[in-house]
Amino acid sequence: MNVIATIIHILGVVTMGSSGLMATCLLTSLIAQDGAQTAFLLATALTLLVGAIMFFPTISTPKIVSRQAGFLLVSITWSLLPVFCTLPLLFYMPKLSFLDAYFEVVSGLTTTGATILSGLDHLPMSINLWRHELNWIAGMGIIIFAVAILPILGVGGMQLYIAETPGSVKESELPPRIAQTAKALWLVYAGISVLCIIALKLAGMSWFDAICHAFAAMSLGGFSTHDNSVGYFNSVPIEVVLTIFQLVAAINFATHFIAIKKRSYRPYVEDMEARAFLALVLTSCLMTAAVLYRDGTYDNYFTALRHATFNLVTIATDCGFASQDFNQWPIFVPMWMLFLSCLSASSGSTGGGIRMIRTIILMKQARLELFKFIHPNSVRPLRIGDAIINNKIVTSVTGFIFLYFISIVILVFLLLFSGLDFVSALSAIIACFNNAGPGLNQVGPATNYASLSDFQTIVCTFAMLLGRVQIFSIVILFVPEFWKK
Amino acid sequence: MNVIATIIHILGVVTMGSSGLMATCLLTSLIAQDGAQTAFLLATALTLLVGAIMFFPTISTPKIVSRQAGFLLVSITWSLLPVFCTLPLLFYMPKLSFLDAYFEVVSGLTTTGATILSGLDHLPMSINLWRHELNWIAGMGIIIFAVAILPILGVGGMQLYIAETPGSVKESELPPRIAQTAKALWLVYAGISVLCIIALKLAGMSWFDAICHAFAAMSLGGFSTHDNSVGYFNSVPIEVVLTIFQLVAAINFATHFIAIKKRSYRPYVEDMEARAFLALVLTSCLMTAAVLYRDGTYDNYFTALRHATFNLVTIATDCGFASQDFNQWPIFVPMWMLFLSCLSASSGSTGGGIRMIRTIILMKQARLELFKFIHPNSVRPLRIGDAIINNKIVTSVTGFIFLYFISIVILVFLLLFSGLDFVSALSAIIACFNNAGPGLNQVGPATNYASLSDFQTIVCTFAMLLGRVQIFSIVILFVPEFWKK
Ligand SMILES: [K+]
Ligand SMILES: [K+]
Repeated sequence: MNVIATIIHILGVVTMGSSGLMATCLLTSLIAQDGAQTAFLLATALTLLVGAIMFFPTISTPKIVSRQAGFLLVSITWSLLPVFCTLPLLFYMPKLSFLDAYFEVVSGLTTTGATILSGLDHLPMSINLWRHELNWIAGMGIIIFAVAILPILGVGGMQLYIAETPGSVKESELPPRIAQTAKALWLVYAGISVLCIIALKLAGMSWFDAICHAFAAMSLGGFSTHDNSVGYFNSVPIEVVLTIFQLVAAINFATHFIAIKKRSYRPYVEDMEARAFLALVLTSCLMTAAVLYRDGTYDNYFTALRHATFNLVTIATDCGFASQDFNQWPIFVPMWMLFLSCLSASSGSTGGGIRMIRTIILMKQARLELFKFIHPNSVRPLRIGDAIINNKIVTSVTGFIFLYFISIVILVFLLLFSGLDFVSALSAIIACFNNAGPGLNQVGPATNYASLSDFQTIVCTFAMLLGRVQIFSIVILFVPEFWKK
Repeated sequence: MNVIATIIHILGVVTMGSSGLMATCLLTSLIAQDGAQTAFLLATALTLLVGAIMFFPTISTPKIVSRQAGFLLVSITWSLLPVFCTLPLLFYMPKLSFLDAYFEVVSGLTTTGATILSGLDHLPMSINLWRHELNWIAGMGIIIFAVAILPILGVGGMQLYIAETPGSVKESELPPRIAQTAKALWLVYAGISVLCIIALKLAGMSWFDAICHAFAAMSLGGFSTHDNSVGYFNSVPIEVVLTIFQLVAAINFATHFIAIKKRSYRPYVEDMEARAFLALVLTSCLMTAAVLYRDGTYDNYFTALRHATFNLVTIATDCGFASQDFNQWPIFVPMWMLFLSCLSASSGSTGGGIRMIRTIILMKQARLELFKFIHPNSVRPLRIGDAIINNKIVTSVTGFIFLYFISIVILVFLLLFSGLDFVSALSAIIACFNNAGPGLNQVGPATNYASLSDFQTIVCTFAMLLGRVQIFSIVILFVPEFWKK
């Protein structure tokens, strides 16, 4: 019973926190008089009330949860929290179905950024701000949740984050106390976000658009205030600024922290994930631009390079803006972009997918297998830099990637079963599962996820959640041993 | 130098062997007076000559090859042998390009059964027999090559076959001497083939069609003497007979041998691969038939079940006949069929793909990872039946599957790069890589691979070879260590 009380208590904290976030939109709405005041007032009050009902009666329960309860907590939080977050949308747009609102909010909180709403340009400022705040908060949220909030509540949180392979050797250089680490990462995240807002303003956005798009870029969420996403601005400076900040956001924030602390670029050079990521993305930009130019999509290479770079970077980093309808491009290019979305983002970033560190470990392992095939008796270990990666981590990584792959296969078949065409189904699942955003065809950048049936919306929502919690936390609930004492 | 001489010598044996095979078609052509007599005469003579030139001068070299040389030999044989086998086609059809002929022959020898020829119904009997003989010989060939021919030549062949996971615990029950094993497997293979010929004749085929289709079924090659493949016959008895023999052919031949020797069905019950394979395929037939019925493709469930069963079994077993244009079916069904083609066939069968045993090991490993996630200090090992599978095999299996997956990704991107649409590209690579046969869209069952460009034909040919030698033997050539002393 204690376990349930503890879980309810923590949910209460999170719920009350969301009502605090809603309050900022309420304030915005009141200042802008944008018509969503009542919606936010009701939503804030109701969320606060339910949060308080969960929080106060359970205040005296011990704040220790077991490994099992921790996983349960993650799944419940990720399923329930979005319910409260839908309230402003549902109160403002009574015609919106709960399922669609839930999709939109999960898309925001998982930093997927796939949208089911049309007419974004005409929504009240406060509603758009709400969507972007979900992106921004959630962008750092999953890390904060694991390394700061749970420990503050007296819960041993780090083990929840075990799905994340110990990526950076530099972990030891971070401040030792968990709360301190969290605060440091927050500061870095908020600081870079402020820089991004200023840069976007200087590049020509309004303050409001600059704030929203900076939130979406730093969290790699990819929501926009315009149906045409970044294509609305048709501005090279804006695309350049966003490209740079998306690349920054896809690098491990621990690396940023150390680089800032040491005032040195060395940590970036030493970050194997960042090196591999940047090399892969830059090569891919040049290559895909060449394909676009070869196929006559754009009539000069530099225009092709401009559009290839922005759209490829935004998909590869799992941000998911769009400046062109890349669904019309030769299929090689968007498929390559989606492929990169599976593996590019760094482990300590707000991106999704397999993460670069796992990709590197797997490639090294495959290379090692080939070597062992020639020299069957060799005992060469797997190394990353100077560190020897032990076998337990390697099998854990391959196990993860298998679950990743089989999850995608099952989800794609569910969409195919429902009658969606293959390219739409595959791209929707890859885009949702990697928390990237737009897919192709029926869910391409020129349209959105609104045309999906209820069943398809549920599948895509589940894909976003499963991808965000790195599969394990949800899949593990289906293992009978989980429920045994 | 000795190594090269030994490789040439063995190539000589194989080449002379092929000329012997050609001689049977020459004889058929002479009897049937079908117009391909000259083509086969020239081809047989030329092949014999070149084989003899390779064989006799190198007759005194020691017949021991190292592990490295063994891999090299496999790759060279698989690349060069098809060159000789194209000769009858090229001599008979001077307008056929070498590339297309090479594709057709590689398709035969890898038991892929994808065809680039049209008007099969009007080809000389001997030419069609040649295609089917390639299927049949190759079906057992890769096993014979590894376990019988090489040892007869004094070459330690078994290590070449190491890519194949030790699948059957029953290996110990097979006759101990390698040549004896090979002969026993041959007998089983030939015996079941004869039964299949008789059954097909009784089901209504001509003797010639019965022989050709039995060759294609037992080898899971899937060539047909008709452009419409098995759809030409439109016969339930023929479809039933072929379905049964394809299922038989996709089970480990060691299991067949033991079952026959013991006159017992127990070995099948004990064969975990066979059990998983049959359960998976039967469930899939019922499910896909339901989808076809639901979507109105066929207006009663039993018609749907008939067509779903035949086409699903033939693709899932990597045989690759077709009785309907399943490209017109709701995409869920053919995609599921292609998915099954990746993993259904047993390790000791003539099918391709990952093989069921590896699928099982991987699934058990993923399950184990989830368990370890809950109980991090447990040391539960991976078991198959009573046997504990050691970690070395598990990492080898995951390494293989990663190479399998990444090979498919690279090959698909090559086809996309060349401008093929996504469904054609993906299905072509999966069908070729698993040695299954027909794909979808441009390479679907109603068309064939003739419309591919030269570049695309090369990519698909390479996919068939890479799939047949289970990736390692070719990929390993690109590892620098391979070439070091
Ligand atoms: K995103
Ligand atoms: K085949």
